[in-house]
Amino acid sequence: MSEITYQQLNPPQRILLGPGPSNIHPRVQMAMLAPMVGHLDPYFISIMEDTKELLRKTFRTENKLTFPVSGTGSAGMEAGFCNFVEPGDVVVIGANGFFGDRMAEMARRYGAKVVQLTTEWGRIIEPEAIETALKAEKKVKLVALVHAETSTGVLQPLEEASKLAKQYEALLLVDSVTSLGGHELAVDDCGIDICYSGTQKCLSCPPGLAPFTANEAALSVLEKRTGPVQSWYLDLSLLSNYWGSSRFYHHTAPISMVYALHEALAVIRDEGLEARIQRHLNHGAALQAGLEAMGLPLHAQEGHRLSTLTSVGIPEGVDDVRVRQNLLNKWNIEIGGGLGELKGRIWRIGLMGQSSTAENVLIVLSALEKQLAEEGYSIDPGAGVSAAAKGLGQ
Amino acid sequence: MSEITYQQLNPPQRILLGPGPSNIHPRVQMAMLAPMVGHLDPYFISIMEDTKELLRKTFRTENKLTFPVSGTGSAGMEAGFCNFVEPGDVVVIGANGFFGDRMAEMARRYGAKVVQLTTEWGRIIEPEAIETALKAEKKVKLVALVHAETSTGVLQPLEEASKLAKQYEALLLVDSVTSLGGHELAVDDCGIDICYSGTQKCLSCPPGLAPFTANEAALSVLEKRTGPVQSWYLDLSLLSNYWGSSRFYHHTAPISMVYALHEALAVIRDEGLEARIQRHLNHGAALQAGLEAMGLPLHAQEGHRLSTLTSVGIPEGVDDVRVRQNLLNKWNIEIGGGLGELKGRIWRIGLMGQSSTAENVLIVLSALEKQLAEEGYSIDPGAGVSAAAKGLGQ
Repeated sequence: MSEITYQQLNPPQRILLGPGPSNIHPRVQMAMLAPMVGHLDPYFISIMEDTKELLRKTFRTENKLTFPVSGTGSAGMEAGFCNFVEPGDVVVIGANGFFGDRMAEMARRYGAKVVQLTTEWGRIIEPEAIETALKAEKKVKLVALVHAETSTGVLQPLEEASKLAKQYEALLLVDSVTSLGGHELAVDDCGIDICYSGTQKCLSCPPGLAPFTANEAALSVLEKRTGPVQSWYLDLSLLSNYWGSSRFYHHTAPISMVYALHEALAVIRDEGLEARIQRHLNHGAALQAGLEAMGLPLHAQEGHRLSTLTSVGIPEGVDDVRVRQNLLNKWNIEIGGGLGELKGRIWRIGLMGQSSTAENVLIVLSALEKQLAEEGYSIDPGAGVSAAAKGLGQ
Repeated sequence: MSEITYQQLNPPQRILLGPGPSNIHPRVQMAMLAPMVGHLDPYFISIMEDTKELLRKTFRTENKLTFPVSGTGSAGMEAGFCNFVEPGDVVVIGANGFFGDRMAEMARRYGAKVVQLTTEWGRIIEPEAIETALKAEKKVKLVALVHAETSTGVLQPLEEASKLAKQYEALLLVDSVTSLGGHELAVDDCGIDICYSGTQKCLSCPPGLAPFTANEAALSVLEKRTGPVQSWYLDLSLLSNYWGSSRFYHHTAPISMVYALHEALAVIRDEGLEARIQRHLNHGAALQAGLEAMGLPLHAQEGHRLSTLTSVGIPEGVDDVRVRQNLLNKWNIEIGGGLGELKGRIWRIGLMGQSSTAENVLIVLSALEKQLAEEGYSIDPGAGVSAAAKGLGQ
């Protein structure tokens, strides 16, 4: 194979303000340099225990079954559906964005009858719609909602949904990929039965693991399955033996990634979860004030906007792709385009984890102003930055 | 969450001579420090292209569909079965060890009728047994074999099996978790249709990715599926769009892990694949000579022993767990115990990737001699090391 050449790794230094990954804390990068050990080494087992406990604190849960799935956020989603859904089960899914649609697709693959609650992409799923679906069906196994819809920038309220799920004896499954460690999320207090996330968003850890938690109610449903879980890799009963006290060999945990997650969660613990959520709120609000001062329409429903990811309408006549390419190539700033039906219609600006800083709010607004001016969209110079700076108390 | 404490990462420096992970090359560890970029960043896309090409050279294939699955080796195994097996399909599986049994378990979960070829753990699957099974069944979809059985130390010959699979129009699926980058493996020349591996063995990269390749014959079988692949996360048609030229968003690739794999494959390219395989052969042979000189019985069938992992019988009266604990705690050496029916009966000593060095052969033999003496097993002092050193040309 001597004939082939390869480039030396030398990635550009990006300011990552897209829908994820976010920038990585130096402590987290350093953690990946820690020496490799065996996955059954007593040292690694102590790190697994630590990681589970730190994850419980971040999810705000006492759930025994709390661990990172050895795959990305989508593997977490699949672990949710392949374990708790059996052919013929009725599941109610809030499909108000790209990731809600993905949940519905997964549930269908596992044989569920999917009641798909749809609304315009950018609006929440109203509790009334959930109740109507629960009433109409004889027995609903699961209600699934995306807490922070990365495709639309919407924060889904969960309280009412949780009450309804309990009332109709359905499990509540919540996707917290873009909220864990960035938005208020209290798994136990909120009555969430199953919850998964990803590492590359508000946890500011590289992508590759999916934090996962499930409570006793969910596990008792799992025990009552009539057939085996189709996926061996994501079978929770096998995974819980590996991550539990019996340490029964299942797969080889991604050790360096677990080191990284351990450190990312320690960084959160050191900052304080409440302080971190407040930081995300402040910077998200400042960014949104700045965008509105530039005359750009916020896409997500008022009162239900994420602080971790802001969706904003692209003004008429402005070239979506050219602006994003210029931001990347001239400013080293990554922002996201729209997904699915929102492609070409919105941008998605993430302020997650390490990327959620006052500096990043100001630089992305400055850069965007410049690029919009190049596109012929006229803005009162500095309006966006001024409004944001005011919000930041500067 | 301020009440909880966590330990600072400070893993011991182990000499990893178990069944994997192996020790990591410093260049690979450094690669994980490379700055995070977006997973659709043009820079990352160039690294994905590089990685695919480097993987093709390592697998010795021209297969277009060659990429790392975003999960560990077991996810690669599951990708093999969930995509190519449909309910009712007949599959013939060589089950001469723990991982062959795992393949059978996965195939069953996906609804296959499994013809399980069994032999004593430690022996190869004979071509005659494969032919008998192919003859007895009307139509076999897939023949699956483990090239390097990590649980027994056996190297499965593939040539005859490949001819038989072609003759009976079945696909040949090969698990190369413990052989890729360490043993001779030529996917195209050998007529392997589907092959997967893991990163933490002979590639000396952290665990977390599963190199995967499939040829056109396999893909045409995939296209003829009557139902959707149950697993969304491992659906090859979706994955090939993401890793292919359309770049259609599927999941977020584990970026730091892909950096690491890219570098690990570059290290192999720099060493030369042939030289690397020879290195594994030399050190494996020296270790085995040493163990035999110590009077320990090699467990795997003669003529079919892995150089990457040696299985050796535990002498009567010797405490399996105590010896391994002493090796770990006094010498910082990890070796593996037996799995399944071989638990307590064998040890498994890996010499994979960076761990396959002359120094490691000598130190593990010295340490083992000392620990066996403590157990009351008497050996001619230095016999193992002398025999190994002779084999190493020292």
